[in-house]
Amino acid sequence: MTTTGAGAEVPSAVDGVEPGAESVVVTDHDRGIHGYHQQKDEHLKRLRRIEGQIRGLQRMVDEDVYCIDILTQVSASTKALQSFALQLLEEHLRHCVADAALKGGAEVDAKVEEATKAIGRLLRT
Amino acid sequence: MTTTGAGAEVPSAVDGVEPGAESVVVTDHDRGIHGYHQQKDEHLKRLRRIEGQIRGLQRMVDEDVYCIDILTQVSASTKALQSFALQLLEEHLRHCVADAALKGGAEVDAKVEEATKAIGRLLRT
Amino acid sequence: MTTTGAGAEVPSAVDGVEPGAESVVVTDHDRGIHGYHQQKDEHLKRLRRIEGQIRGLQRMVDEDVYCIDILTQVSASTKALQSFALQLLEEHLRHCVADAALKGGAEVDAKVEEATKAIGRLLRT
Amino acid sequence: MTTTGAGAEVPSAVDGVEPGAESVVVTDHDRGIHGYHQQKDEHLKRLRRIEGQIRGLQRMVDEDVYCIDILTQVSASTKALQSFALQLLEEHLRHCVADAALKGGAEVDAKVEEATKAIGRLLRT
Repeated sequence: MTTTGAGAEVPSAVDGVEPGAESVVVTDHDRGIHGYHQQKDEHLKRLRRIEGQIRGLQRMVDEDVYCIDILTQVSASTKALQSFALQLLEEHLRHCVADAALKGGAEVDAKVEEATKAIGRLLRT
Repeated sequence: MTTTGAGAEVPSAVDGVEPGAESVVVTDHDRGIHGYHQQKDEHLKRLRRIEGQIRGLQRMVDEDVYCIDILTQVSASTKALQSFALQLLEEHLRHCVADAALKGGAEVDAKVEEATKAIGRLLRT
Repeated sequence: MTTTGAGAEVPSAVDGVEPGAESVVVTDHDRGIHGYHQQKDEHLKRLRRIEGQIRGLQRMVDEDVYCIDILTQVSASTKALQSFALQLLEEHLRHCVADAALKGGAEVDAKVEEATKAIGRLLRT
Repeated sequence: MTTTGAGAEVPSAVDGVEPGAESVVVTDHDRGIHGYHQQKDEHLKRLRRIEGQIRGLQRMVDEDVYCIDILTQVSASTKALQSFALQLLEEHLRHCVADAALKGGAEVDAKVEEATKAIGRLLRT
């Protein structure tokens, strides 16, 4: 209803979609490009580092390391996971939620509710 | 395409905005109506209940109640605060962030970054 | 200096306990003095400060302060509550749990399980 | 009247320590048996499951799964890590802290302070 904003954030050409269609909001999201797409490599690198931390924890348990030192490493891993979640969430808000806002209607309410529930789950852990 | 942004944060001069101006997106936010405005009474009720819980904690300490029971009440109060924060955040995303999306440009990025930082602060407590 | 475990849970008959009886462990806890007793004033001061923060939140909502600023204040209040809980927990471990350890037997297991559950509730909020 | 706790939880013979020495508190802990020793296999199994979850996250990112679903999986992994930490902490309190209490003196204060700090780090993530 609003905007065309057409291609506002589009970094490249897009296959099959007519960006010229004036009255329609077409976004990256419609093109199957999720918010975190461009950061994919960075995300995978982060997650591999966290996987390494978890393997480090196994080694610590196996070698009878002092409990408190293991707990410190658990805190570091949890923090790394939370930080990954925050980054993902930021991209989600920037792309999916903003996208829904452009389309207007009930879509944005549904997306915001969904995002808030995800934040609630993160808070409760 | 959007906005004039005129009076973006101005809490006054509300009805003075021309809602009829076709090509301009004017939102509640421009009129100084923050997301949580309509739930104000509900929010105040919630906060008064939390204040009561904190006074209850003082009574418990004063009456030498068993530590674990006090801790349980602290958890309940923290949960109530988090739940208040989530509700506020949901309204913020629905109104301020979606509003910024309609206006396009750098505004939405700034708002999303600001919201993400606030979520990060909630997570870290 | 240790144990017989005599009077383990007895909250009554406080001054009636013979502290001189060599073979009996009598602790502050037996005398109805919980761990946090000596810090009572400090605790009450802390809680009154938190109560003030909650009232500050009500004022902020009432005066339509910007959502993000309210969320920042919520984070501060939650942090203050967690910090109060940690202090209480430390005193509880130092007094009640250590006390149970001196008495030996199943008591310490029960106390540790109870404390761990309380920590779990704090973590989940 | 204290302990030798004669082999109370000791799963095996103990090298070099005289359990007969009446006036000395000798605990499992002195024998290099940390609290989590007996649960080692369970801990390793748990951690391997968490490692699997982290690898699952990598697959999800790689396959462009919807952000919210990834966040849900992050919450599950964080919860699993917290739950592992709680179990470790419980065993630590049961063994190391209780052990320090038996020895008395400054030891228990140091151990409780150390444990509380570890709990604080867990809370802040």
